[in-house]
Amino acid sequence: MRVIIYGVGAVGGAVAAALVENGQEVIGIARGAQLEAIRAQGLRVRSPVFDRAVRFECVSDPAEIDFRADDAILLCMKTQDTAPALEALREAGVWKQPIFCVQNGVANERIALRVFPNVHGITVMLPAGLLAPGDVAAWCEPQFGMFDIGRYPEGNDADDARLAAAFEGSMITPFVLDDVMNSKYGKLLLNLGNITQAALGRGADTGEIGAALKDEAKAVYAAHGIAPVDLSESDPRRKELMRFGTIEGIENIGGSTVQSLARGAGSVETDYLNGEIALLGRIAGVSTPMNDAMTRLGAALARKGAAPGSMTLDDLRRFVG
Amino acid sequence: MRVIIYGVGAVGGAVAAALVENGQEVIGIARGAQLEAIRAQGLRVRSPVFDRAVRFECVSDPAEIDFRADDAILLCMKTQDTAPALEALREAGVWKQPIFCVQNGVANERIALRVFPNVHGITVMLPAGLLAPGDVAAWCEPQFGMFDIGRYPEGNDADDARLAAAFEGSMITPFVLDDVMNSKYGKLLLNLGNITQAALGRGADTGEIGAALKDEAKAVYAAHGIAPVDLSESDPRRKELMRFGTIEGIENIGGSTVQSLARGAGSVETDYLNGEIALLGRIAGVSTPMNDAMTRLGAALARKGAAPGSMTLDDLRRFVG
Repeated sequence: MRVIIYGVGAVGGAVAAALVENGQEVIGIARGAQLEAIRAQGLRVRSPVFDRAVRFECVSDPAEIDFRADDAILLCMKTQDTAPALEALREAGVWKQPIFCVQNGVANERIALRVFPNVHGITVMLPAGLLAPGDVAAWCEPQFGMFDIGRYPEGNDADDARLAAAFEGSMITPFVLDDVMNSKYGKLLLNLGNITQAALGRGADTGEIGAALKDEAKAVYAAHGIAPVDLSESDPRRKELMRFGTIEGIENIGGSTVQSLARGAGSVETDYLNGEIALLGRIAGVSTPMNDAMTRLGAALARKGAAPGSMTLDDLRRFVG
Repeated sequence: MRVIIYGVGAVGGAVAAALVENGQEVIGIARGAQLEAIRAQGLRVRSPVFDRAVRFECVSDPAEIDFRADDAILLCMKTQDTAPALEALREAGVWKQPIFCVQNGVANERIALRVFPNVHGITVMLPAGLLAPGDVAAWCEPQFGMFDIGRYPEGNDADDARLAAAFEGSMITPFVLDDVMNSKYGKLLLNLGNITQAALGRGADTGEIGAALKDEAKAVYAAHGIAPVDLSESDPRRKELMRFGTIEGIENIGGSTVQSLARGAGSVETDYLNGEIALLGRIAGVSTPMNDAMTRLGAALARKGAAPGSMTLDDLRRFVG
């Protein structure tokens, strides 16, 4: 099996390093300065216990890849970029190869299943950041993190087993599940705070807002019969495999929404995080005013190019209104 | 109530004409040559029994509109263009105004509900074509067509009643339903042939393929418990309200997929027509090989800029393989 990593950002970069160091064949798809840096000097990936520049083939577009029947394709872009990526894969001749959605939220799997028949989900428990082109930090130790893997909409199959085998013994610990989407719904609970972190800065007090975001989500899940896997710090796997550490000389500014604002990406994935809760609430008739407000805030901050941490808790309360 | 028609193409143009002629206040959102033509000489709309140039305000972007709480917003673009349109509406300050998805397929409502809380579906029974900038043909008589209207995901409310009242007595006959999505699933059955029409040309024999597309869809619907409304020619409303007619000097080249190919749009909405059946089939474990193949064909024809009617039935059979 060869692993195609589509989107070599922070998560995709850590995945590439884990697989390459584990002896797997990898092709990355990246753009711009990131692609140039990887081609010129490899991808540096650092964690509290790891620091190496890994070398792997990297291209700018799926069209440059001669896809094989036994390729596994890992989508590592944000949800708002998934649809054009799928179109590029289709144009490049991909059809029955397994597509793994290595992404936050729970929307990508359905988007991919419209185009391709063999879609899988992966829960990304892997705090990481792109420090500069060619330079990735993974913040946990002893492992970069852990992946829950399974077929969409449910079950698991030989493709999940093959990908798990590729990660076995690497810096990312794989777990194959029968109900990966319940794990992704569990992860989504953690990502509901990405927007407050982006607005207030990492580590800031979110007051009553942070708790309300999760409470609304749990009410929505209950209305839909969704039973999220507990991926909070009380998950014993986290204690064993992924404890936050420090990397000398660099700072952890925060999660993916912070990073999108910091690099002026112009879009954030809030519509697929807090917006997913708002959507499910509207379908079930459950009110989600706080996730509504945070979804709108994400769009507003991205639009105006706000810096991370530009708001106070009082600003946030006024925005909620 | 003021009606904002976002996307003044064939359907949006016929809607604008019906409402303006019915004394309703309308603002259109259009682009390029279409916007210029409408501003310069109004929009000409012809049917077998109607031929007028209607005048209404038209802008290029929602940002130019000072939205009011009692505006109704009609999405008349194709599904692949819905997400950026919603973002533009959000940026323009839209929030609780009703959003009506006047579009084929069944995907737009969910896409809109992620962003806005008040979403409605409309089944578009209105064969129309954009002949040239500022020039629309609606092919039926005595009416342009008929709309089934209701709230998403179900029910209907005062917004549906208000919009229906705006159409009452116009060239489009409104019906308010409790289960508009079942009507849209019924319409989707008719749209499964858009791609064969685009490949083979209007009126060509689709052999066993046309029937197979519908049979697969019906099996998929049954697996999901979806009960589509019958909108085939046996719907008595069609016999009374919308019989295909002729318009002197112009030719009906076919439906929306034909038209997308004819103008080299670069994308078609097949992913949301046959692709919806493929998606629902994959979720339910029902095989849909013919809709799979036609979905891929739509992408391939759009990509290569194929002209409508460029394939023979034998070509199509070879493509299905």
